[in-house]
Amino acid sequence: MNAANPTPALEWAGDHIQIIDQTLLPGELVVLEIRSADAAVDAISRLAIRGAPALGAFGALALVVGLDEAAPAGTDEAWAVLERLRTYVGDARPTAVNLKWAVDRTLAAARSANPADLAELRAALLDEALAVGAEDAAACDEIGRLGSAELADAITIGTHCNAGRLATAGIGTALAPLYAKAAQGSPVRAFASETRPLLQGARLTAWELADAGIDVTVVPDGAMASTILSGQVDAYIVGADRIAANGDTANKIGTLSHALACQAAGVPFYVAAPTSTIDASLPSGDRIVIEQRDQDEVHNIGAERLTPSGVAAANPAFDVTPASLITAIITEAGVLRAPFGDAIGSLGLSP
Amino acid sequence: MNAANPTPALEWAGDHIQIIDQTLLPGELVVLEIRSADAAVDAISRLAIRGAPALGAFGALALVVGLDEAAPAGTDEAWAVLERLRTYVGDARPTAVNLKWAVDRTLAAARSANPADLAELRAALLDEALAVGAEDAAACDEIGRLGSAELADAITIGTHCNAGRLATAGIGTALAPLYAKAAQGSPVRAFASETRPLLQGARLTAWELADAGIDVTVVPDGAMASTILSGQVDAYIVGADRIAANGDTANKIGTLSHALACQAAGVPFYVAAPTSTIDASLPSGDRIVIEQRDQDEVHNIGAERLTPSGVAAANPAFDVTPASLITAIITEAGVLRAPFGDAIGSLGLSP
Repeated sequence: MNAANPTPALEWAGDHIQIIDQTLLPGELVVLEIRSADAAVDAISRLAIRGAPALGAFGALALVVGLDEAAPAGTDEAWAVLERLRTYVGDARPTAVNLKWAVDRTLAAARSANPADLAELRAALLDEALAVGAEDAAACDEIGRLGSAELADAITIGTHCNAGRLATAGIGTALAPLYAKAAQGSPVRAFASETRPLLQGARLTAWELADAGIDVTVVPDGAMASTILSGQVDAYIVGADRIAANGDTANKIGTLSHALACQAAGVPFYVAAPTSTIDASLPSGDRIVIEQRDQDEVHNIGAERLTPSGVAAANPAFDVTPASLITAIITEAGVLRAPFGDAIGSLGLSP
Repeated sequence: MNAANPTPALEWAGDHIQIIDQTLLPGELVVLEIRSADAAVDAISRLAIRGAPALGAFGALALVVGLDEAAPAGTDEAWAVLERLRTYVGDARPTAVNLKWAVDRTLAAARSANPADLAELRAALLDEALAVGAEDAAACDEIGRLGSAELADAITIGTHCNAGRLATAGIGTALAPLYAKAAQGSPVRAFASETRPLLQGARLTAWELADAGIDVTVVPDGAMASTILSGQVDAYIVGADRIAANGDTANKIGTLSHALACQAAGVPFYVAAPTSTIDASLPSGDRIVIEQRDQDEVHNIGAERLTPSGVAAANPAFDVTPASLITAIITEAGVLRAPFGDAIGSLGLSP
């Protein structure tokens, strides 16, 4: 990154976890010290930490924090504590698949290590928890390396929502190529679409790119089409919440409109995601169930009521961009291109 | 309309003007009594009244209010008062062409009437000012009549920004067909896109449709593409700020993204506007200069700061939808269809 020492979004500090409280961004940069299971679950529940990969790495570390807090007398008591933490932490956000997956994986690894005493148990747990984050960070780095090569000629890059270091244990997915380009000394500028209703683009992407010294301009979602059509964007890149076996990609609501504008303008449109995002059991995107979120997210911003009372609001959390609008899917296992069904099939993922 | 007696957005009350203060919608419905030129200019400047046709009708009536307030001793003094009002009122919003046009037209008509005394002068002025509003209302009615026939099979209709009775002296342009359908007893429902940054869809369109008893759902701008692509919208209709000779249409920022989604979905996309909106001197839309507005409209909503300080925001006020994405342009002079150059040419407008 350009900036010398950006504040880590998530860090293990020896005996506690440090995270940026994302609910206070961009107004305040507050680092939370997570020293108890309650504090960890509270941080997850109120979205102080968010983003599926980041939640996985955080939840795994929260097991160590919860174990230290309980100070069990021996391994039997420790396993009982961890069994409670499995559901307490792992189910803190039921839709976050990575959270439960990382908690289960970390506990299974500790069991497999067959620790002789409490110290060995804690060490095995911490090793695996750190490995969860390290693997995610490595995938981000590889996406950054492959993506910066793919986008070598792009200087001004559009992005939607936040798929950066605030959402992962590394440099992000969609934002990884931007960080990689900046690290290489290549010129790079970003247009971040606001991402109503929760404004992750305006709040989080704008904050983390500016924090890293990358020039970023916030664009209302409705203004992105003319920004793209007027030739101001060289390439557009987004993360993914779920990718079907044919390449259809579910991502934050609003992604589809930017993909349509890119198609109309002949601007390449990229998806960047770890292969764990690919759901090979889904033949196509029309099988992806779209979460409908609380209308109040549309009706209000902070203390401001925007809409008349009694009027309804639609609030789908995601939309599905058909594979036909996607130039390539950049994963840590390679850059996938059309026909995406074949490219994804060749990865040999278990459905 | 369905609702028995919706509050008029703009009304002449014998010795003053009554308007809804649009800055307070949808939170509060406050009717302002405009009894002085200062009050009129203040209302225009702070957007208590907005929308080009509404501003024209209001500005013309403000001349009568200003004349009454000055209470001149005779016609000579009256003309001097009116000459000051011509610029004071007419230039209150420099980009609102209709405002200056309506003020000039009303003054010219009063001059042509050659009034013998103060009473005749005031009567001539008031007649013309009321005619400005009446003609706009008649155009809205005709757009409603033609539009409701054109959209006879559409039940759920999407719209952007506010081109309704709050923006005109009548039932609106884009919203006129919805009001006409409701008046005919035909089923009609609306999806109103939020229209960031100033939220005219969420605030004003949602308010006026609900006030008239028409079911309306507010949709974040980025959520409209999937709403349209998923088959929930039968037709989409917007107003226009300026229409080029080839049919390319400048309208509120965000219009283009909805037009692209309609094209992808095969959903008809309509523009509704009086023929006065057509600028026959412009061969195509790429000649339309796009106003860039204050970044703070993007950075803040009410007291809420959305973006990090120091980060830039793009805030184009309009975008241009190419004629190729437009199914038809509904005017008071008829429904124009492709090739739009020929259809517009046949109207015989002076360039």
